Amino acid sequence: MKIEHPYLMFLGDAPDELAAKTAIGIKQWRPEWCVGQLSLPGCKADLGLPEMTIADAKAAGVKTLVLGVANRGGIIGPAWMETILAAIEAGMDVANGLHTRLTTNPELAKAAAAKGVSLFDVRHFDGQVPVGNGEKRSGKRVLAVGTDCSVGKMYTALAIDAEMKKRGMKSDFRATGQTGIFIAGEGISVDAVISDFISGAVETIAPANDEDHWDVVEGQGSLFHASYSGVTMGLIHGSQPDALVVCHEPTRAHMRGLPGYKLVDLKTCMDVNLMHAKLTNPNCVVVGFAINTKALDEAAATKLLADIEAEFGLPAVDPVRTGVASIVDKLQEI
Amino acid sequence: MKIEHPYLMFLGDAPDELAAKTAIGIKQWRPEWCVGQLSLPGCKADLGLPEMTIADAKAAGVKTLVLGVANRGGIIGPAWMETILAAIEAGMDVANGLHTRLTTNPELAKAAAAKGVSLFDVRHFDGQVPVGNGEKRSGKRVLAVGTDCSVGKMYTALAIDAEMKKRGMKSDFRATGQTGIFIAGEGISVDAVISDFISGAVETIAPANDEDHWDVVEGQGSLFHASYSGVTMGLIHGSQPDALVVCHEPTRAHMRGLPGYKLVDLKTCMDVNLMHAKLTNPNCVVVGFAINTKALDEAAATKLLADIEAEFGLPAVDPVRTGVASIVDKLQEI
Repeated sequence: MKIEHPYLMFLGDAPDELAAKTAIGIKQWRPEWCVGQLSLPGCKADLGLPEMTIADAKAAGVKTLVLGVANRGGIIGPAWMETILAAIEAGMDVANGLHTRLTTNPELAKAAAAKGVSLFDVRHFDGQVPVGNGEKRSGKRVLAVGTDCSVGKMYTALAIDAEMKKRGMKSDFRATGQTGIFIAGEGISVDAVISDFISGAVETIAPANDEDHWDVVEGQGSLFHASYSGVTMGLIHGSQPDALVVCHEPTRAHMRGLPGYKLVDLKTCMDVNLMHAKLTNPNCVVVGFAINTKALDEAAATKLLADIEAEFGLPAVDPVRTGVASIVDKLQEI
Repeated sequence: MKIEHPYLMFLGDAPDELAAKTAIGIKQWRPEWCVGQLSLPGCKADLGLPEMTIADAKAAGVKTLVLGVANRGGIIGPAWMETILAAIEAGMDVANGLHTRLTTNPELAKAAAAKGVSLFDVRHFDGQVPVGNGEKRSGKRVLAVGTDCSVGKMYTALAIDAEMKKRGMKSDFRATGQTGIFIAGEGISVDAVISDFISGAVETIAPANDEDHWDVVEGQGSLFHASYSGVTMGLIHGSQPDALVVCHEPTRAHMRGLPGYKLVDLKTCMDVNLMHAKLTNPNCVVVGFAINTKALDEAAATKLLADIEAEFGLPAVDPVRTGVASIVDKLQEI
């Protein structure tokens, strides 16, 4: 799965900004790939990009129409179909972040085949990957883990990759979820892989590389999340990380989607993730903490980060508020 | 997936006993369901059952032809096709333990639809299960975990279920792999489930039950196996076990399929599995050890079990050599 840019961002009839969360993430991390947006009547989301028709986008050199928006009721309505078919007709690929598949829609599949363009259902994985073999690979890898789902693991990984590139280090962000795949232009949604192949999928997307190259692997879920822990476990073993960054959101009342499940403390989270990571990479270390302090004021955030640094003797950052320089400093020592 | 018995055991042209491993397991645990066997020329496996044609089996009341044998090269050859089609024609369901699917074979699918019979590909899972919710369910559950794959987890679970039934306790063996599914007549191959749904699949097959009912859940893989640990993690969280039995094979030189990976020690295995089990069931305890001592002589086996009992203060059994009575004694205290 290799998604070609530039992108035309399809916003459809998104009822609010939240429905366009994926599109917003893509625009934030790859603004240079996003040349325009296409909204339908009633759309309440706005990326601040030029509004374009399919013809405008074609003229601007767009390669892929990106469906980075939640739809209503999980079905692709007539208005959406019209736009998608027009993009196919114009020779664009279509990359889809919905659970609903494009590839199994006969009308779209037929049109795409006729024009020789590709349809990508990035939330799904229909390819073949081997079972994980656990064999040591060359190159270095850092993985974002966390106390819970949606605590900023993707953002942290992207910030580390960007900081590494800024310093002239060799690095690649390795995407394991849908938004990340649009941002990287490739990857595998590991939670969509058959469970026997989770670690094998990660071995595939973060393969052997130059000894001074870093794969910055997007994390998923949490070892302490009763719904998704298996995905996280396979990710840890498959990425055989040299380093872990522990991500956390300090104001969350309970595990995401699981009322009654409290969040694990940072010490336990760090220790247990590290223990499992050492199975496939005995030299793995924790290099720091990435805390999403968005819900805190500046003083509270600063105090929290300082407290965590004092407790663990490791950098504690908020990728948005402080950047990740101190974590990349630690990674450069590895 | 509900596989009706009695079974006719198809042995095909199995090149040796090992190729018929699944069939042998079914015959061992459900002899009363296995009324006959059907071998093709060149078959080197023998279950000791009456040799039957499809017509014989039909007359004997067989409901399902069971393909519990590995085939050569992963394809279903002409001789196999002939037998399978004859079974369908006779109105039997066909349950298949091969990786190769029957359901996607157009000739078989068409014949089955015409006769209104079912084809079961038990190594695959095409159904829908919800994401795990981690909510406390009534009833009790015991899960077999282990240091490695193929150390006797299924055998242990079946022995516990049999011992419980002998004592008049309410119990069900809950199958999570192909051989177990044939033995239970139902279940889900959890390693074939999309990874987001591992724990949800286990919640589905071991649902709420009477407070004095035990689900004896078949384990898979190991938290310490670099290829399959994600499956094991989801199984632990989804089964929310009240009790764990730790399974082990003491003579194994390295993790199955992973040269260079040593086996974990029993203490670490016990502690780490228990720690993760407590996430969804804080009252979980380890009730004992099931050691496959087949490779040891009687004296060595007896000494090993005694040593483990002395070290941990818990029963250590070999389900084959000693039975599992002392483990079920512990379970009855819960």
